[in-house]
Amino acid sequence: MSQTLEQRIQQLEDRQGLQEVITDYLIAVDALESVEDILNVFTEDAVFDMSGINYPSFAGKPALREFFTGVFAQMTHHAHYATNFKVDAIDGDTAKCRTHVIGMGKTLGGDNVLFYLQYHLGYRRTAQGWKIQSFRGKALMPL
Amino acid sequence: MSQTLEQRIQQLEDRQGLQEVITDYLIAVDALESVEDILNVFTEDAVFDMSGINYPSFAGKPALREFFTGVFAQMTHHAHYATNFKVDAIDGDTAKCRTHVIGMGKTLGGDNVLFYLQYHLGYRRTAQGWKIQSFRGKALMPL
Amino acid sequence: MSQTLEQRIQQLEDRQGLQEVITDYLIAVDALESVEDILNVFTEDAVFDMSGINYPSFAGKPALREFFTGVFAQMTHHAHYATNFKVDAIDGDTAKCRTHVIGMGKTLGGDNVLFYLQYHLGYRRTAQGWKIQSFRGKALMPL
Repeated sequence: MSQTLEQRIQQLEDRQGLQEVITDYLIAVDALESVEDILNVFTEDAVFDMSGINYPSFAGKPALREFFTGVFAQMTHHAHYATNFKVDAIDGDTAKCRTHVIGMGKTLGGDNVLFYLQYHLGYRRTAQGWKIQSFRGKALMPL
Repeated sequence: MSQTLEQRIQQLEDRQGLQEVITDYLIAVDALESVEDILNVFTEDAVFDMSGINYPSFAGKPALREFFTGVFAQMTHHAHYATNFKVDAIDGDTAKCRTHVIGMGKTLGGDNVLFYLQYHLGYRRTAQGWKIQSFRGKALMPL
Repeated sequence: MSQTLEQRIQQLEDRQGLQEVITDYLIAVDALESVEDILNVFTEDAVFDMSGINYPSFAGKPALREFFTGVFAQMTHHAHYATNFKVDAIDGDTAKCRTHVIGMGKTLGGDNVLFYLQYHLGYRRTAQGWKIQSFRGKALMPL
Protein backbone atom coordinates (compact mmCIF):
# COMPACT_ATOMS: atom_id res chain seq x y z
CA MET A 1 0.00 0.00 0.00
CA SER A 2 1.32 3.38 -0.97
CA GLN A 3 2.39 5.79 1.75
CA THR A 4 1.19 9.36 2.12
CA LEU A 5 3.64 12.22 1.70
CA GLU A 6 3.31 12.91 5.44
CA GLN A 7 4.30 9.32 6.28
CA ARG A 8 7.32 9.55 4.00
CA ILE A 9 8.43 12.84 5.59
CA GLN A 10 7.94 11.32 9.06
CA GLN A 11 10.25 8.43 8.15
CA LEU A 12 12.95 10.82 6.96
CA GLU A 13 12.57 12.88 10.15
CA ASP A 14 12.68 9.77 12.34
CA ARG A 15 15.88 8.57 10.75
CA GLN A 16 17.45 11.99 11.16
CA GLY A 17 16.21 12.26 14.75
CA LEU A 18 17.56 8.84 15.70
CA GLN A 19 20.98 9.66 14.29
CA GLU A 20 21.00 13.06 15.97
CA VAL A 21 20.63 11.44 19.40
CA ILE A 22 23.94 9.60 19.01
CA THR A 23 25.54 12.74 17.56
CA ASP A 24 24.40 14.73 20.61
CA TYR A 25 25.74 11.99 22.87
CA LEU A 26 29.19 12.00 21.27
CA ILE A 27 29.43 15.79 21.16
CA ALA A 28 28.69 15.86 24.92
CA VAL A 29 31.09 12.98 25.64
CA ASP A 30 33.89 14.75 23.76
CA ALA A 31 33.21 18.21 25.25
CA LEU A 32 33.86 16.75 28.73
CA GLU A 33 31.89 19.67 30.19
CA SER A 34 28.43 18.51 31.24
CA VAL A 35 27.45 15.05 32.47
CA GLU A 36 23.80 16.22 32.33
CA ASP A 37 24.12 16.82 28.56
CA ILE A 38 25.07 13.15 28.26
CA LEU A 39 22.26 11.92 30.52
CA ASN A 40 19.77 13.94 28.49
CA VAL A 41 19.98 11.49 25.56
CA PHE A 42 18.96 8.49 27.72
CA THR A 43 15.65 7.25 29.14
CA GLU A 44 15.41 7.04 32.95
CA ASP A 45 15.72 3.23 32.82
CA ALA A 46 18.47 3.10 30.21
CA VAL A 47 20.74 0.05 30.12
CA PHE A 48 24.39 0.83 29.38
CA ASP A 49 26.35 -2.29 28.53
CA MET A 50 30.02 -1.92 27.71
CA SER A 51 30.92 -5.41 28.89
CA GLY A 52 31.88 -6.21 25.29
CA ILE A 53 34.82 -3.84 25.63
CA ASN A 54 35.76 -4.65 29.23
CA TYR A 55 33.83 -1.72 30.74
CA PRO A 56 30.97 -2.07 33.24
CA SER A 57 27.33 -2.76 32.51
CA PHE A 58 24.58 -1.05 34.54
CA ALA A 59 21.11 0.51 34.30
CA GLY A 60 19.32 3.71 35.29
CA LYS A 61 20.27 7.39 35.24
CA PRO A 62 21.85 7.42 38.75
CA ALA A 63 24.30 4.71 37.66
CA LEU A 64 24.92 6.51 34.36
CA ARG A 65 25.59 9.76 36.25
CA GLU A 66 28.07 8.05 38.53
CA PHE A 67 29.83 6.34 35.63
CA PHE A 68 30.24 9.49 33.52
CA THR A 69 31.22 11.61 36.53
CA GLY A 70 34.06 9.14 36.99
CA VAL A 71 34.95 9.24 33.29
CA PHE A 72 35.04 13.06 33.33
CA ALA A 73 37.35 13.00 36.37
CA GLN A 74 39.73 10.62 34.63
CA MET A 75 39.90 11.88 31.05
CA THR A 76 41.51 15.10 29.79
CA HIS A 77 40.56 14.54 26.12
CA HIS A 78 37.99 12.59 24.14
CA ALA A 79 37.30 12.22 20.41
CA HIS A 80 34.60 9.89 19.08
CA TYR A 81 33.71 9.57 15.40
CA ALA A 82 30.43 7.84 14.44
CA THR A 83 29.76 6.55 10.92
CA ASN A 84 27.72 3.86 9.12
CA PHE A 85 24.50 4.77 10.97
CA LYS A 86 21.82 2.20 10.21
CA VAL A 87 18.15 2.08 11.26
CA ASP A 88 17.44 -1.63 11.67
CA ALA A 89 13.81 -1.22 12.73
CA ILE A 90 11.24 1.37 13.70
CA ASP A 91 8.13 -0.08 15.30
CA GLY A 92 5.85 2.71 16.45
CA ASP A 93 7.58 4.29 19.43
CA THR A 94 10.62 2.02 19.61
CA ALA A 95 13.58 1.67 17.27
CA LYS A 96 16.78 -0.31 16.86
CA CYS A 97 19.88 1.18 15.25
CA ARG A 98 23.59 0.53 14.85
CA THR A 99 26.55 2.79 14.26
CA HIS A 100 30.28 2.29 13.88
CA VAL A 101 32.41 4.44 16.20
CA ILE A 102 36.11 5.25 16.45
CA GLY A 103 36.66 6.32 20.06
CA MET A 104 39.81 7.71 21.59
CA GLY A 105 40.92 9.63 24.63
CA LYS A 106 43.74 10.70 26.89
CA THR A 107 43.74 10.09 30.63
CA LEU A 108 44.94 12.41 33.39
CA GLY A 109 47.90 10.05 33.74
CA GLY A 110 48.80 10.64 30.09
CA ASP A 111 47.72 7.28 28.72
CA ASN A 112 46.01 7.09 25.33
CA VAL A 113 43.02 4.84 24.72
CA LEU A 114 41.68 3.85 21.29
CA PHE A 115 38.66 1.72 20.37
CA TYR A 116 37.18 0.55 17.08
CA LEU A 117 33.55 -0.21 17.93
CA GLN A 118 30.01 -0.70 16.82
CA TYR A 119 27.22 0.56 19.08
CA HIS A 120 23.94 -1.39 19.16
CA LEU A 121 21.19 1.00 20.22
CA GLY A 122 17.61 0.61 21.40
CA TYR A 123 15.46 3.76 21.38
CA ARG A 124 12.14 4.85 22.81
CA ARG A 125 10.11 7.81 21.51
CA THR A 126 9.24 10.21 24.35
CA ALA A 127 7.53 13.58 24.65
CA GLN A 128 11.06 15.04 24.38
CA GLY A 129 11.88 13.07 21.24
CA TRP A 130 13.86 9.85 20.71
CA LYS A 131 15.90 8.69 23.72
CA ILE A 132 18.35 5.79 24.09
CA GLN A 133 16.97 2.95 26.18
CA SER A 134 19.74 0.42 25.60
CA PHE A 135 23.32 1.01 24.60
CA ARG A 136 25.71 -1.84 23.92
CA GLY A 137 29.28 -1.60 22.66
CA LYS A 138 30.85 -4.28 20.51
CA ALA A 139 34.54 -4.34 19.58
CA LEU A 140 35.29 -4.57 15.86
CA MET A 141 39.06 -4.76 16.28
CA PRO A 142 40.93 -6.49 19.15
CA LEU A 143 41.03 -4.32 22.29
CA MET B 1 10.72 24.96 -12.97
CA SER B 2 9.60 24.35 -9.45
CA GLN B 3 9.47 20.79 -8.10
CA THR B 4 6.49 19.12 -6.49
CA LEU B 5 6.61 18.08 -2.84
CA GLU B 6 6.63 14.46 -3.99
CA GLN B 7 9.69 15.05 -6.18
CA ARG B 8 11.50 16.73 -3.31
CA ILE B 9 10.71 13.84 -0.95
CA GLN B 10 11.85 11.37 -3.62
CA GLN B 11 15.21 13.13 -3.86
CA LEU B 12 15.71 12.96 -0.09
CA GLU B 13 14.75 9.27 -0.11
CA ASP B 14 17.07 8.52 -3.04
CA ARG B 15 20.01 10.16 -1.31
CA GLN B 16 19.30 8.22 1.88
CA GLY B 17 18.80 4.97 -0.04
CA LEU B 18 22.06 5.37 -1.95
CA GLN B 19 24.01 5.98 1.24
CA GLU B 20 22.31 3.05 2.99
CA VAL B 21 23.60 0.64 0.34
CA ILE B 22 27.20 1.41 1.22
CA THR B 23 26.35 1.29 4.93
CA ASP B 24 24.82 -2.17 4.46
CA TYR B 25 27.90 -3.24 2.52
CA LEU B 26 30.32 -2.14 5.24
CA ILE B 27 28.24 -3.60 8.07
CA ALA B 28 28.30 -6.96 6.26
CA VAL B 29 32.01 -6.69 5.42
CA ASP B 30 32.83 -5.99 9.08
CA ALA B 31 30.52 -8.67 10.52
CA LEU B 32 32.51 -11.31 8.58
CA GLU B 33 29.51 -13.62 8.85
CA SER B 34 27.66 -13.75 5.52
CA VAL B 35 29.15 -13.37 2.05
CA GLU B 36 25.58 -13.35 0.70
CA ASP B 37 24.80 -10.19 2.73
CA ILE B 38 27.66 -8.53 0.88
CA LEU B 39 26.59 -9.82 -2.54
CA ASN B 40 23.07 -8.54 -1.90
CA VAL B 41 24.16 -4.91 -2.38
CA PHE B 42 25.51 -5.55 -5.89
CA THR B 43 23.92 -6.00 -9.31
CA GLU B 44 24.53 -9.34 -11.05
CA ASP B 45 27.00 -7.70 -13.46
CA ALA B 46 28.78 -5.55 -10.86
CA VAL B 47 32.36 -4.46 -11.57
CA PHE B 48 34.62 -4.47 -8.52
CA ASP B 49 37.85 -2.63 -9.16
CA MET B 50 40.36 -2.39 -6.33
CA SER B 51 43.35 -2.14 -8.67
CA GLY B 52 43.94 1.36 -7.26
CA ILE B 53 44.91 -0.22 -3.95
CA ASN B 54 46.76 -3.26 -5.30
CA TYR B 55 43.80 -5.62 -5.03
CA PRO B 56 42.20 -7.45 -7.95
CA SER B 57 39.61 -6.14 -10.39
CA PHE B 58 36.80 -8.39 -11.65
CA ALA B 59 33.11 -8.48 -12.59
CA GLY B 60 29.99 -10.49 -11.84
CA LYS B 61 28.55 -12.05 -8.70
CA PRO B 62 30.39 -15.39 -9.03
CA ALA B 63 33.73 -13.56 -9.01
CA LEU B 64 32.56 -11.36 -6.12
CA ARG B 65 31.50 -14.45 -4.16
CA GLU B 66 34.88 -16.07 -4.72
CA PHE B 67 36.73 -12.93 -3.72
CA PHE B 68 34.81 -12.32 -0.49
CA THR B 69 34.88 -16.01 0.45
CA GLY B 70 38.65 -15.72 0.30
CA VAL B 71 38.62 -12.49 2.32
CA PHE B 72 36.44 -14.08 5.01
CA ALA B 73 38.83 -17.04 5.22
CA GLN B 74 41.81 -14.74 5.66
CA MET B 75 40.56 -12.01 8.03
CA THR B 76 39.70 -12.34 11.71
CA HIS B 77 38.62 -8.69 12.13
CA HIS B 78 37.39 -5.85 9.94
CA ALA B 79 36.41 -2.25 10.67
CA HIS B 80 35.43 0.17 7.91
CA TYR B 81 34.25 3.74 8.54
CA ALA B 82 32.54 5.63 5.68
CA THR B 83 32.15 9.44 5.71
CA ASN B 84 31.80 12.35 3.27
CA PHE B 85 29.08 10.63 1.25
CA LYS B 86 28.35 12.63 -1.91
CA VAL B 87 25.74 12.08 -4.62
CA ASP B 88 27.45 13.29 -7.78
CA ALA B 89 24.55 12.52 -10.12
CA ILE B 90 21.18 10.83 -10.27
CA ASP B 91 19.88 10.28 -13.78
CA GLY B 92 16.63 8.33 -13.66
CA ASP B 93 17.60 4.81 -12.62
CA THR B 94 21.35 5.27 -12.41
CA ALA B 95 23.46 7.25 -9.97
CA LYS B 96 27.08 8.11 -9.24
CA CYS B 97 28.34 8.67 -5.69
CA ARG B 98 31.56 8.93 -3.73
CA THR B 99 32.45 8.25 -0.12
CA HIS B 100 35.61 8.42 1.95
CA VAL B 101 36.42 5.23 3.86
CA ILE B 102 38.89 4.30 6.59
CA GLY B 103 39.34 0.55 6.30
CA MET B 104 41.27 -1.73 8.62
CA GLY B 105 41.53 -5.37 9.50
CA LYS B 106 43.52 -8.13 11.11
CA THR B 107 44.55 -11.29 9.27
CA LEU B 108 44.63 -14.87 10.56
CA GLY B 109 48.41 -14.52 10.61
CA GLY B 110 48.11 -11.54 12.96
CA ASP B 111 49.00 -8.80 10.48
CA ASN B 112 47.16 -5.48 10.58
CA VAL B 113 46.04 -3.72 7.41
CA LEU B 114 44.98 -0.08 7.19
CA PHE B 115 43.68 1.93 4.22
CA TYR B 116 42.62 5.56 3.74
CA LEU B 117 40.39 5.44 0.69
CA GLN B 118 37.70 7.00 -1.41
CA TYR B 119 35.16 4.71 -3.09
CA HIS B 120 33.75 5.76 -6.47
CA LEU B 121 30.38 4.09 -6.89
CA GLY B 122 28.00 3.54 -9.79
CA TYR B 123 24.45 2.49 -8.92
CA ARG B 124 21.45 1.07 -10.74
CA ARG B 125 17.87 1.24 -9.43
CA THR B 126 16.28 -2.22 -9.37
CA ALA B 127 12.98 -3.71 -8.16
CA GLN B 128 14.85 -4.40 -4.89
CA GLY B 129 16.10 -0.82 -4.58
CA TRP B 130 19.46 0.77 -5.41
CA LYS B 131 22.30 -1.69 -6.10
CA ILE B 132 26.00 -1.09 -6.76
CA GLN B 133 26.97 -1.70 -10.38
CA SER B 134 30.54 -0.41 -10.21
CA PHE B 135 32.82 -0.10 -7.23
CA ARG B 136 36.26 1.46 -7.51
CA GLY B 137 38.68 2.14 -4.68
CA LYS B 138 41.13 5.02 -4.78
CA ALA B 139 43.89 5.53 -2.22
CA LEU B 140 43.97 8.93 -0.51
CA MET B 141 47.12 8.25 1.51
CA PRO B 142 50.12 6.15 0.35
CA LEU B 143 49.47 2.42 0.76
CA MET C 1 1.98 25.53 15.87
CA SER C 2 2.07 22.69 13.41
CA GLN C 3 4.33 22.92 10.38
CA THR C 4 3.28 22.45 6.79
CA LEU C 5 4.66 19.54 4.77
CA GLU C 6 6.61 22.05 2.69
CA GLN C 7 8.27 23.51 5.79
CA ARG C 8 9.22 20.04 6.99
CA ILE C 9 10.72 19.14 3.61
CA GLN C 10 12.61 22.45 3.58
CA GLN C 11 14.16 21.64 6.97
CA LEU C 12 15.32 18.24 5.72
CA GLU C 13 16.76 19.85 2.59
CA ASP C 14 18.50 22.57 4.60
CA ARG C 15 20.16 20.04 6.88
CA GLN C 16 21.31 18.01 3.88
CA GLY C 17 22.49 21.13 2.06
CA LEU C 18 24.48 22.37 5.06
CA GLN C 19 26.22 19.03 5.45
CA GLU C 20 26.93 18.80 1.73
CA VAL C 21 28.91 22.06 1.84
CA ILE C 22 31.44 20.59 4.26
CA THR C 23 31.50 17.35 2.24
CA ASP C 24 32.27 19.34 -0.93
CA TYR C 25 34.99 21.24 0.95
CA LEU C 26 36.72 18.07 2.17
CA ILE C 27 36.46 16.30 -1.19
CA ALA C 28 38.16 19.31 -2.81
CA VAL C 29 40.78 19.59 -0.03
CA ASP C 30 41.66 15.90 -0.43
CA ALA C 31 41.68 15.92 -4.25
CA LEU C 32 44.47 18.56 -4.12
CA GLU C 33 43.53 19.55 -7.69
CA SER C 34 41.57 22.80 -7.66
CA VAL C 35 41.89 25.65 -5.15
CA GLU C 36 38.84 27.23 -6.81
CA ASP C 37 36.71 24.18 -5.87
CA ILE C 38 37.64 24.90 -2.26
CA LEU C 39 36.94 28.64 -2.50
CA ASN C 40 33.53 27.88 -4.02
CA VAL C 41 32.15 26.72 -0.66
CA PHE C 42 32.97 30.05 1.06
CA THR C 43 31.36 33.51 1.06
CA GLU C 44 33.51 36.38 -0.22
CA ASP C 45 34.05 37.65 3.34
CA ALA C 46 34.63 34.23 4.94
CA VAL C 47 36.66 34.10 8.15
CA PHE C 48 39.00 31.10 8.36
CA ASP C 49 40.33 30.62 11.88
CA MET C 50 42.66 27.71 12.51
CA SER C 51 44.44 29.42 15.42
CA GLY C 52 43.08 26.67 17.67
CA ILE C 53 45.36 24.20 15.91
CA ASN C 54 48.37 26.49 15.44
CA TYR C 55 47.48 27.48 11.89
CA PRO C 56 46.81 31.05 10.75
CA SER C 57 43.58 33.01 10.99
CA PHE C 58 42.48 35.34 8.18
CA ALA C 59 39.47 36.59 6.21
CA GLY C 60 38.35 37.02 2.61
CA LYS C 61 38.70 34.94 -0.53
CA PRO C 62 42.07 36.43 -1.62
CA ALA C 63 43.61 35.33 1.70
CA LEU C 64 41.90 31.92 1.43
CA ARG C 65 43.27 31.52 -2.12
CA GLU C 66 46.78 32.35 -0.98
CA PHE C 67 46.56 29.96 1.97
CA PHE C 68 45.26 26.98 0.00
CA THR C 69 47.67 27.63 -2.89
CA GLY C 70 50.44 27.27 -0.31
CA VAL C 71 48.87 24.12 1.15
CA PHE C 72 48.58 22.55 -2.31
CA ALA C 73 52.26 23.32 -3.00
CA GLN C 74 53.31 21.68 0.26
CA MET C 75 51.12 18.56 0.49
CA THR C 76 51.30 15.42 -1.66
CA HIS C 77 48.35 13.66 0.06
CA HIS C 78 45.31 14.60 2.11
CA ALA C 79 42.53 12.57 3.74
CA HIS C 80 39.82 14.20 5.87
CA TYR C 81 36.90 12.30 7.39
CA ALA C 82 33.92 14.28 8.74
CA THR C 83 31.37 12.74 11.13
CA ASN C 84 28.94 13.82 13.89
CA PHE C 85 27.43 16.62 11.79
CA LYS C 86 25.12 18.75 13.92
CA VAL C 87 22.90 21.69 12.97
CA ASP C 88 22.97 23.90 16.06
CA ALA C 89 20.72 26.62 14.64
CA ILE C 90 19.05 27.78 11.45
CA ASP C 91 17.71 31.33 11.61
CA GLY C 92 16.34 32.35 8.23
CA ASP C 93 19.38 32.75 5.97
CA THR C 94 22.09 31.98 8.51
CA ALA C 95 23.02 28.74 10.25
CA LYS C 96 25.49 27.38 12.79
CA CYS C 97 26.78 23.81 12.60
CA ARG C 98 29.50 21.60 14.00
CA THR C 99 31.26 18.51 12.69
CA HIS C 100 34.02 16.24 13.97
CA VAL C 101 36.89 15.71 11.53
CA ILE C 102 39.87 13.37 11.36
CA GLY C 103 42.40 15.11 9.13
CA MET C 104 45.68 13.75 7.85
CA GLY C 105 48.20 14.41 5.15
CA LYS C 106 51.70 13.88 3.83
CA THR C 107 54.04 16.72 2.96
CA LEU C 108 56.45 16.99 0.03
CA GLY C 109 59.23 16.42 2.57
CA GLY C 110 57.65 13.11 3.57
CA ASP C 111 56.29 14.16 6.97
CA ASN C 112 52.88 12.91 8.10
CA VAL C 113 50.40 15.17 9.85
CA LEU C 114 47.34 14.00 11.80
CA PHE C 115 44.61 16.00 13.55
CA TYR C 116 41.54 15.08 15.58
CA LEU C 117 39.30 18.12 15.31
CA GLN C 118 35.88 19.65 15.53
CA TYR C 119 34.97 22.38 13.03
CA HIS C 120 32.62 25.15 14.18
CA LEU C 121 30.88 26.54 11.11
CA GLY C 122 28.83 29.65 10.38
CA TYR C 123 26.81 29.63 7.13
CA ARG C 124 24.98 32.17 5.02
CA ARG C 125 22.30 31.27 2.45
CA THR C 126 23.10 32.77 -0.95
CA ALA C 127 21.60 32.62 -4.43
CA GLN C 128 24.07 29.73 -5.03
CA GLY C 129 22.99 27.86 -1.90
CA TRP C 130 24.54 27.65 1.57
CA LYS C 131 28.11 29.00 1.86
CA ILE C 132 30.54 28.98 4.79
CA GLN C 133 31.01 32.43 6.32
CA SER C 134 33.07 31.39 9.33
CA PHE C 135 35.23 28.33 9.82
CA ARG C 136 36.96 27.61 13.11
CA GLY C 137 38.97 24.52 13.99
CA LYS C 138 39.17 23.20 17.55
CA ALA C 139 41.48 20.38 18.62
CA LEU C 140 39.82 17.43 20.38
CA MET C 141 43.06 15.55 21.07
CA PRO C 142 46.45 17.16 21.88
CA LEU C 143 48.21 18.38 18.74
